[in-house]
Amino acid sequence: MVILGIDPGLAIVGYGVVECKGNKYKALDYGCITTDSKILFPERLKIIYDELSSIIDKYNPQDMAVEELFFNKNVKTAIKVGQARGVEVLAGVNKGLGIYEYTPLQIKQSVTGYGRADKRQVQDMVKLLLNLKEIPKPDDTADALAVAICHSSCLRLKDMFKMK
Amino acid sequence: MVILGIDPGLAIVGYGVVECKGNKYKALDYGCITTDSKILFPERLKIIYDELSSIIDKYNPQDMAVEELFFNKNVKTAIKVGQARGVEVLAGVNKGLGIYEYTPLQIKQSVTGYGRADKRQVQDMVKLLLNLKEIPKPDDTADALAVAICHSSCLRLKDMFKMK
Repeated sequence: MVILGIDPGLAIVGYGVVECKGNKYKALDYGCITTDSKILFPERLKIIYDELSSIIDKYNPQDMAVEELFFNKNVKTAIKVGQARGVEVLAGVNKGLGIYEYTPLQIKQSVTGYGRADKRQVQDMVKLLLNLKEIPKPDDTADALAVAICHSSCLRLKDMFKMK
Repeated sequence: MVILGIDPGLAIVGYGVVECKGNKYKALDYGCITTDSKILFPERLKIIYDELSSIIDKYNPQDMAVEELFFNKNVKTAIKVGQARGVEVLAGVNKGLGIYEYTPLQIKQSVTGYGRADKRQVQDMVKLLLNLKEIPKPDDTADALAVAICHSSCLRLKDMFKMK
């Protein structure tokens, strides 16, 4: 199956398209969608929606795995980035994908086996599991690939234990 | 011209379709889109997007006027409602509407002439200006009509002073 992983954002949206067969992974595509802060806000949302929709059309993934947003304090940022994430999720729903959301902790735990792993450890595992020559840049791209891998392992675990 | 006013939300999205000729207003339609918290989050976003898109198709408004979100503390709520607002704005952009955003202060000031007006005074003015028999319920609907009226007066003022 093909999974689209998303690291949500407004200025930078990381995406990773991962093909999973059992516990074998292959990165079909990865990168990030960027929107300039000089562009009007509604237009930035449209750019993100349109680009994500094109990626979905191209690779026809079954599921979208999206990282949950976490902000400690900055409510203004939370509102801005929240709006972008809404549009990112909608792009998936409107194309009929199953949408799955994971916390940063779940992603770390699933990819490295350790919830307190640091960013670098997660990135190293992404590189290893996908058999890449280098750690994908920027971090948002690596994070998007990580959430796709996380979703795939969750599905495998559920299947193994016949969970719902 | 026809303006679609939006009071953004996730559980309740207020909308008001207002036809404006000079300083005369007519409410073509108003109400709210509601989504049950028992429904999966991505599906709630889709319901909002689809219903708003239908309203736009029906009335063909030129502009969408949307209230800005304000939250003091609750970042979790800000992220949830922010995602819904993103989808609401996108519904307008994807139909080619001009998108205009107003703060609660700007709306109060524009509708009542007084930035510290209370909710009831705003609602009374909405009723008066639109020549309605009753104050529209729930508050979200009245707020949506208020932001549409606010946008119309802003356009008139800009035109009067040839502002850009």
